Amino acid sequence: MARIVQKFGGTSVGDVARIKNVAKRVKAEVERGNQVAVVVSAMSGVTNQLVAYCNEISPMHDQREYDAVVSTGEQVTTGLLAIALQGLGMKARSWTGWQIPIGTDDAHGKARIESIDGEGLIRCMEAGEIAVIAGFQGITGDNRISTLGRGGSDTTAVAVAAAVKADRCDIYTDVDGVYTTDPRIGATARKLDKITYEEMLESASLGAKVLQTRSVEMAMKHRVRVQVLSSFSDAPGTLVCDEDEILEKELVSGITYSRDEAKVTLVGVQDQPGVAASIFGPLADANINVDMIVQNTSREGTTDLTFTTSRGELDRALKVIKESMKVPYASIVTDKSVVKVSVIGVGMRSHAGVAQTMFKALADRKINIHIISTSEIKVSVLISEEYTELALRALHTAYGLDAA
Amino acid sequence: MARIVQKFGGTSVGDVARIKNVAKRVKAEVERGNQVAVVVSAMSGVTNQLVAYCNEISPMHDQREYDAVVSTGEQVTTGLLAIALQGLGMKARSWTGWQIPIGTDDAHGKARIESIDGEGLIRCMEAGEIAVIAGFQGITGDNRISTLGRGGSDTTAVAVAAAVKADRCDIYTDVDGVYTTDPRIGATARKLDKITYEEMLESASLGAKVLQTRSVEMAMKHRVRVQVLSSFSDAPGTLVCDEDEILEKELVSGITYSRDEAKVTLVGVQDQPGVAASIFGPLADANINVDMIVQNTSREGTTDLTFTTSRGELDRALKVIKESMKVPYASIVTDKSVVKVSVIGVGMRSHAGVAQTMFKALADRKINIHIISTSEIKVSVLISEEYTELALRALHTAYGLDAA
Repeated sequence: MARIVQKFGGTSVGDVARIKNVAKRVKAEVERGNQVAVVVSAMSGVTNQLVAYCNEISPMHDQREYDAVVSTGEQVTTGLLAIALQGLGMKARSWTGWQIPIGTDDAHGKARIESIDGEGLIRCMEAGEIAVIAGFQGITGDNRISTLGRGGSDTTAVAVAAAVKADRCDIYTDVDGVYTTDPRIGATARKLDKITYEEMLESASLGAKVLQTRSVEMAMKHRVRVQVLSSFSDAPGTLVCDEDEILEKELVSGITYSRDEAKVTLVGVQDQPGVAASIFGPLADANINVDMIVQNTSREGTTDLTFTTSRGELDRALKVIKESMKVPYASIVTDKSVVKVSVIGVGMRSHAGVAQTMFKALADRKINIHIISTSEIKVSVLISEEYTELALRALHTAYGLDAA
Repeated sequence: MARIVQKFGGTSVGDVARIKNVAKRVKAEVERGNQVAVVVSAMSGVTNQLVAYCNEISPMHDQREYDAVVSTGEQVTTGLLAIALQGLGMKARSWTGWQIPIGTDDAHGKARIESIDGEGLIRCMEAGEIAVIAGFQGITGDNRISTLGRGGSDTTAVAVAAAVKADRCDIYTDVDGVYTTDPRIGATARKLDKITYEEMLESASLGAKVLQTRSVEMAMKHRVRVQVLSSFSDAPGTLVCDEDEILEKELVSGITYSRDEAKVTLVGVQDQPGVAASIFGPLADANINVDMIVQNTSREGTTDLTFTTSRGELDRALKVIKESMKVPYASIVTDKSVVKVSVIGVGMRSHAGVAQTMFKALADRKINIHIISTSEIKVSVLISEEYTELALRALHTAYGLDAA
């Protein structure tokens, strides 16, 4: 017997027929002899409607009231799924965030889970009852309802899995696993059986969008084994797990990309100590995320300094620089037609030459690299957006990832 | 300064524009220098949608899960109204049933309020904050969400008013008060300034449908002054209050009617001790409400026994009688084309001849009376449904209730 936490997103519980379908999947898991807790999102469209109401009444609304409103979507799904499970002859009951309780900080709208009392849930499951849990929500220290922000149900599922010491957390979604690259672009993309937390984290934050970043961080921290699989098929998914559990490690597990990149170059900056601080200090103060940073060596007392930020923050970043830049510079050049392509793999730690394979594959296709950035398990390059598909396919082949 | 509880029903908060409108009314009350708590229903249509989901998944659903689902409608309205009030510069916060808490028994779907902790609400109001409260819901002893049944928000409002020792409970609705009769039928119906709890209770249970019966019972028990008024006009409403507060008592305050009546006559029942018990015992056991009962005097050892029940329960009532009736009888005759017309007034206690005025007015119009039933402050008659309007108008005039 195993203890499993399952999570179904908004599309999977989008209407009454789909909720009934989810109930069948949950029942099947119980019939395999397992204890089951299910975390659900709001029916698709419901949260958007509730958010729209809040914005319509007042765009600058109180986040505590926003949370009271939008958290109801998940509560509805829990009740309906419990009813559907009972209709299949199963014992089941719904749990809101405050009933468990799932304690969070008071950052309403994007709260962080601080504690989960697993007692009630474990008692429920040990009595042969399926615990149906509202995702995305919790309760603050002063008894107000909080929400975790978009995609927060993944985090709820992983946190609950940690709290009830589950053997596995199955995240049902509209894709059937984690691929070596975006299947819509790389036609030969291959589904991975397993991927490490570290790789998944790089992948999530680099735009693969399968799991919410925070949920992967939490899974890594508590060593929760997470499986990503489709709620519309019976194919096996991808297991996100500890490196030790992966026997056949691949050098590179995936090629990802992110289009939400904008490049800013300060040309002819006077080269003196404190230049970088004078630029990035004000940007950090203004809460603007800066990703890749490159500073060229000095030439005739000036240097060029380039960094990337998200496209949505570009205008704000320029405003901050123009207002706060103390060091003389010649001009600012921006480019929104760039894309970041990354090669990810824990195998890099022990193998040299991984980056070189990337640079050669791109050079062979005459793709110019604007910026390079590396970490322990990834190499990222910024290139012109028009080469996105070409680069992805070339790298996918170069690292031997193509499906047979 | 007074402390006021206001209640707005589903039509009054039916969309974002109407919620903003309600916020203006609440603000106006605060600006008159009063402390205000507001009880709200779900936006119109929302509860029906949620109920439909439950029924679609399983008609025999768990009432506890039903409550978890349908209680969300009110929660959404509280958050939205709090946002709207803040948008007008007011301090406001939402309260769910479990946050207050409003304790109920565990009769899910039709729970009764057992206790309300007014502490938090009073503290909120005394700090100059408007308490926006979810109607229709509470929490059971084992931490599950309960609902009070349809129309339960009126009861919540009155119970909250009692708990916070409010000076008045204003029930905003789609009619602007309590009339001497149904304005749709009696064109000359007059709005009452005041009505006693007892009269309102008779009126509510006899089908006037302005306030939920249970809320009037609770108001009477705790002596909460309740005002019924329109959320769409500024006209003064009707105050439901203690008899002492009404200086100019009228003999009769209203003429009401109920179409939901069915008549059952057992013809030629053998007249022996225990006949009534042998009929009404089994009906009570089957939870069938019996209203008027008439037994004629015996003739040649047999008697006719007539009673009324609601139309929806008629078939079940007949089944129960046929299966359980031990005493011989000749036949059963039923009639669904009947209506109960009632004359209500606390003045009856001290005045004779009230019933006679009714009988004469009906006789003058050649309206035949099937059954008569009286209580301390009302006289009800069962007549053929086709005479409903004629009877109401005749009685309205006979008791001097017509508007000038």
